[in-house]
Amino acid sequence: MTYPFLNRLRVIESSAFIAAPLAGLTLAQHGADVIRIDMIGGGIDYGRMPRMPHPEGRGRSLYWTALNKGKRSVAVDLRRPEGRELIQALVTAPGPDAGVLLTNIGTPWLAHGLLAEKRADLVSCTIQGNGDGSTAVDYTVNCVTGYPLVTGGGSAQHPVNHVLPAWDIACAYQAAFAVLAAVDRRRRTGEGAELKLALSDTAFTMLSHLGVLAEVELLGQERPSIGNHLYGAFGRDFATSDGRRLMVVAISAGQWKCLVDACGIADDVQALQARTGLDLSDEARRFEAREAIAGLLEPWFAARTREQAERELDAHRATWGRYSTVGEMMTQDPRMNSASNPVFERIETPGVGEHIAAGATVRAPGMSRAPTTPAALLGTHTDEVLYEVLGMSSGAIGRLHDAGIVAGPERDPTVAARAA
Amino acid sequence: MTYPFLNRLRVIESSAFIAAPLAGLTLAQHGADVIRIDMIGGGIDYGRMPRMPHPEGRGRSLYWTALNKGKRSVAVDLRRPEGRELIQALVTAPGPDAGVLLTNIGTPWLAHGLLAEKRADLVSCTIQGNGDGSTAVDYTVNCVTGYPLVTGGGSAQHPVNHVLPAWDIACAYQAAFAVLAAVDRRRRTGEGAELKLALSDTAFTMLSHLGVLAEVELLGQERPSIGNHLYGAFGRDFATSDGRRLMVVAISAGQWKCLVDACGIADDVQALQARTGLDLSDEARRFEAREAIAGLLEPWFAARTREQAERELDAHRATWGRYSTVGEMMTQDPRMNSASNPVFERIETPGVGEHIAAGATVRAPGMSRAPTTPAALLGTHTDEVLYEVLGMSSGAIGRLHDAGIVAGPERDPTVAARAA
Repeated sequence: MTYPFLNRLRVIESSAFIAAPLAGLTLAQHGADVIRIDMIGGGIDYGRMPRMPHPEGRGRSLYWTALNKGKRSVAVDLRRPEGRELIQALVTAPGPDAGVLLTNIGTPWLAHGLLAEKRADLVSCTIQGNGDGSTAVDYTVNCVTGYPLVTGGGSAQHPVNHVLPAWDIACAYQAAFAVLAAVDRRRRTGEGAELKLALSDTAFTMLSHLGVLAEVELLGQERPSIGNHLYGAFGRDFATSDGRRLMVVAISAGQWKCLVDACGIADDVQALQARTGLDLSDEARRFEAREAIAGLLEPWFAARTREQAERELDAHRATWGRYSTVGEMMTQDPRMNSASNPVFERIETPGVGEHIAAGATVRAPGMSRAPTTPAALLGTHTDEVLYEVLGMSSGAIGRLHDAGIVAGPERDPTVAARAA
Repeated sequence: MTYPFLNRLRVIESSAFIAAPLAGLTLAQHGADVIRIDMIGGGIDYGRMPRMPHPEGRGRSLYWTALNKGKRSVAVDLRRPEGRELIQALVTAPGPDAGVLLTNIGTPWLAHGLLAEKRADLVSCTIQGNGDGSTAVDYTVNCVTGYPLVTGGGSAQHPVNHVLPAWDIACAYQAAFAVLAAVDRRRRTGEGAELKLALSDTAFTMLSHLGVLAEVELLGQERPSIGNHLYGAFGRDFATSDGRRLMVVAISAGQWKCLVDACGIADDVQALQARTGLDLSDEARRFEAREAIAGLLEPWFAARTREQAERELDAHRATWGRYSTVGEMMTQDPRMNSASNPVFERIETPGVGEHIAAGATVRAPGMSRAPTTPAALLGTHTDEVLYEVLGMSSGAIGRLHDAGIVAGPERDPTVAARAA
C-alpha cells in the first residue's frame, strides 16, 4: 500500500541496481511521484536475475520489477544530447513539489552544479560507491568491514560473505531520508541541497554507530568469531527432535527469565552460577558462560519437536525464531501471511503475472492509502510525463519518437512470446 | 558532523537497543533536537557490551554511547505516575517543531490515542517486534527469512546467522524516514500520524522489494546456497600468494571486461565460451559458469601478493574489495582514514575518552555543519529540558529531584573510579 504522506513530491530517478531504486521505491510508497528514467531497452540492471522464463531469454527481471514498483517509467536515449536535455528539463521543471533528483549515475550531465544553473533550489541526491567517486558495490564494501571474518565461524582465511545486500539497503533508506530532510529545509528556507551518499561511508558510519570502531580503538579488541552465538548476551540456535532448528535469544533480564522458565533450567542455572561464580542475571556473564548455558538447553530442544518447543516457549513468552526457507516463511509464518498482514497485497505485474507484493513497511492506522502499483513496462509513461511536466505538444512528442530519442511502452515480453 | 536540515525539530525518544535509538541518531545528525528519555540509572540497554573497563564493572557501554551521540539526555523514574506525566507533557508540548515521539516501548502510557488527546497533531512512531505487538528481535527475525540457510554454504541443518543486525538497521532508517514523511504532511495539512513499524515487516517487505518473494511464488525456486559466490552474475573471493583474500565482482558488462583485462584471461574466456556455448558477456551465463570462471582466476591471484593484485586490478578499473579486520580497515583503508573522510571526526565522550566517531553519512558540500556531540551522561539535560520545554521553575524542578522523580547528570564512572 502507498500512503499519501508526500503529496506527489516529484522525484526524477536515474539509477541502477539496488540502493538508488530502493530509495525511489521508498519515496514512491510514501506518496511521491517517482519518475524513473531508463535507457531505451533498459539500463544495466534491467536483466538482473532472477528473470521470468521466456523462449528467447527476454523474460522480465523479478529483481527489477520488485525494486521499481509504484514508479512511472520514461524511456530515453541517454547517449544523445537531446535525450539528456530532456532529463535535465524534467529535473529542473518548476514547482514547489518538483526539483528533486535521485541518482547513482555519476555522469557530468547530471552534475548538481550544472542543473542548479537552471533551478537554484534543486535537491539532488547522488549515491556513490566511494566518497572519492570510485566504484564500489555492496559485496566489495562488506569485505572490508570485518563482518565476513566473524560470520559463521569465518576467519581471515575463510571469510563468509553476507547474502543480503545490507549496505545497499542501509544506503537506500538513508538516501530517501536525506532527500526528505533537504526538502523540509527547502520548504523553510528556499535553499536547495547537493547530497552525496557513499556506499562505503554507509558501512564505515554504521561501524561507528554500533560502537565497533570505538571498541577497536579504545579496547583494542576485535569481535570474536563465535558462529551462531549472539555477541554480548545469550542467543543461539538449537536442533529439535525432528531435525529442525530454532533461534532463542536472552538479551534482557526479562528474556532470560522467560527462557529459563520455559526450558525448566532454573536449578541447573543455579548450579552453574554456584560452580562458576558468575551472576547470570548479568548479560555479560551470560555471554561469558554461553557454551555452558547452551549445554543446558540442548537436551531440552533435542527432546521436543519444533512444534512442541515453539508452543512451550510461547507459553512462557520466551523470544525465539524459526529457521525456514522463504517458501516456508510465506506459507507457514502467520506474521507474513498476506491475508492478515496489511503491508502485503496481490498485484499483477505486466510480463510477470499476479504475485504477492509489499507496500510501505510502515502502518498508519486510520490513514487513507492506495494500492501498490506494479512496475511499469519501460516507457509506459514517456508521453504522459513529457506532456504533464514539460507541457510538450503531441506533435513535439511525436517528433522525439520519430527521431528515436524517446520510446513508448515496450512490448510485454510474455505477450510477444505468446504471439510468436 | 551534524547538518542543520531539520531546524531543531524536537523528537522525544523513549527507546532501547538499536532500531529506535539509531532512528533518533539519524534525526539528530540531520539537525533534530532529539531528547532521549531514560529510566534513572539507565534502561535495559544501558549496560550492553562492549563496555569500558571499570573496577566495579560499571564502565560505560560503547554500544549505548555510540547510538546516542548528539542527543540530550533526561533521566526520569518511569515507574511512577509523576514521571510518566512528565514524559507525556514533553511529547505533547506545543510548537510546530515539536510533537514527535519515537519509541520502541509499547507501553499504554505512551499510546498514540492517549497522547493525541493532549496534542491532536502528534506524530508518533512506534517500532515493534511483530505487527501484532509480540516480541521479536533482529536475530529471531533473521532466521525466518531464509538467508541463514544460504549464507556461507549454510543449510537447514547448519544455518549461518548474520552478525550485522541488518533488520534493525533497515528498520531504524525507515522509522527516521517515516517520521519526516509524517512531519512533511503535518506541515501541509495540520494532521498528525500514528506510525507503526514492525521489525519482522521490515524483513518481509525487503524480501518482496528484492524480488525474492516473487521468485519463490512464480518460479518455485529458493536461492541456492553458493558460499561466497555472488548470486546472478560473477563475484567471489580469491586467495593471494601472501595468504590474504580479495573479493572481485563482475555484475555489469563493464565490470566483467575490466576484470578479464586486469587478469589477462581474455583468451581463456574465449576458449571457455567455445567449449560451453555460453555467452559470458551475459551476466546470467557468468553465473552459470561461475566455477569455471573462478578456476581461470585462481592462479592469477595465487601468483600475486595482495598488494600486487590490488595495483593491477586498479590499473584496469576492476571492482574489488579487501577482506580486513576492523582495525586494519581503520588504519589501512584510505577511504576510511579520518583525516581525509569528512564523515568522521574525533570526539571526547564522558566516561569513555577520546575516539573516532561518525556524523551523518550524507555529505552536503557547501552546507554549514556542526561537530558531532558525544553521548551525554544520563540526565545531563534533565533540568534544562524541563525548563525550556515545560517552562518549569527551578523550585518545581528541585521538588522533582527531591522526590526522586527526575535525576540530574549521573557521575562519570571513570571519575568516580579514579576518586575511589
